[in-house]
Amino acid sequence: MGTEVKLYGVCASPYNWRVVLALKQKGIEFEFIEEDLSNKSQMLLEYNPVHKKIPVLVHGGKPVCESIVILEYIEEKWPHNPLLPSDPYEKAVARFWLKFANDKFPAIIRMVLASGEEREEAIKETLEMLQTLEEHGLIREKKFFGDDKINMVDIAFSGIARYLEPIESYLGIKLLEADKFPNLLAWINNFKEVPIVKDTLPPLKPPQKKLD
Amino acid sequence: MGTEVKLYGVCASPYNWRVVLALKQKGIEFEFIEEDLSNKSQMLLEYNPVHKKIPVLVHGGKPVCESIVILEYIEEKWPHNPLLPSDPYEKAVARFWLKFANDKFPAIIRMVLASGEEREEAIKETLEMLQTLEEHGLIREKKFFGDDKINMVDIAFSGIARYLEPIESYLGIKLLEADKFPNLLAWINNFKEVPIVKDTLPPLKPPQKKLD
Repeated sequence: MGTEVKLYGVCASPYNWRVVLALKQKGIEFEFIEEDLSNKSQMLLEYNPVHKKIPVLVHGGKPVCESIVILEYIEEKWPHNPLLPSDPYEKAVARFWLKFANDKFPAIIRMVLASGEEREEAIKETLEMLQTLEEHGLIREKKFFGDDKINMVDIAFSGIARYLEPIESYLGIKLLEADKFPNLLAWINNFKEVPIVKDTLPPLKPPQKKLD
Repeated sequence: MGTEVKLYGVCASPYNWRVVLALKQKGIEFEFIEEDLSNKSQMLLEYNPVHKKIPVLVHGGKPVCESIVILEYIEEKWPHNPLLPSDPYEKAVARFWLKFANDKFPAIIRMVLASGEEREEAIKETLEMLQTLEEHGLIREKKFFGDDKINMVDIAFSGIARYLEPIESYLGIKLLEADKFPNLLAWINNFKEVPIVKDTLPPLKPPQKKLD
């Protein structure tokens, strides 16, 4: 056991990707164990008995659950290449946006998984989230939320860069119109050019036929 | 301005109470500004433009929003009388439960505010939350989540100690049955005996007539 690092996850999950990016940013070697969510492993159920969900980071035999909690743990344990500002006030601002990501990002997933009225509601919520990010100027005249390099807030919103465009294609809608979201679109382009992002972006399946 | 601390809040809010308890635990002097939620002050809207919600802590003129983010800020800024364990793994475990509190506690409020099917759903969710807390042994053979003194996790769940019993009376239901929740009931009793808790527990209005 010792200090080895294992990640129980699902390659296609945006929450899993957050942890992969943080580990890569810190240069930490880890073993990835792909879970089958339709037949969860005994280890996953033991490591996360409350939620029974991925991702779970296991370090030296001890599990840490919930993606943002895992990112905070990684930051505490391996403080080099910091993912949070050192100033307490700036750190609180970052954590405000981490909570915003936690609360609002699931709407993006619900756009795909839900249907009918619930899907419409998820589309509306996603658009509100994107507008808040665009309008609050966090990424205005900056490459990243973390200024000149990505930080934990960029990682928390990484799912937007990866999933939004394919979901738009899949649903046949356009949320990120170029004239309305210049800051967010610039951020997505900058983010996708980061080497660890490029290296860990697995190919997405082509959009499937709409289910309803 | 300098380093003065102000709290924009509502005395009856469980989220506000979290911040009051953390400030008291640290012995920090602060000015409390009671907001009228039906007519929010210009200051509140400026300080929390994203959510327009209380509580907002203003320190030296700079606002921090979202109760758990505020608690983390207080802990960073005034590290004496710590509210989180110093060990990174123990801190991650505490943060797991802080997220659990953030995600699940709102069901308690919805038991009162919602009606019909939505209220039934909120009651079910509240019961699941209470069972998880009871069964995962966090407070078994310990006075508090923080062991022999309260920590940030106790503060995050403080609303249970304060609101659950009056809400049970108001709704005419019993969730915390003595034989099923010995750990949680012991924790509530211990928590209510803590001097800063006793000193800041404002009297609750008598249960009003049920609305439906």
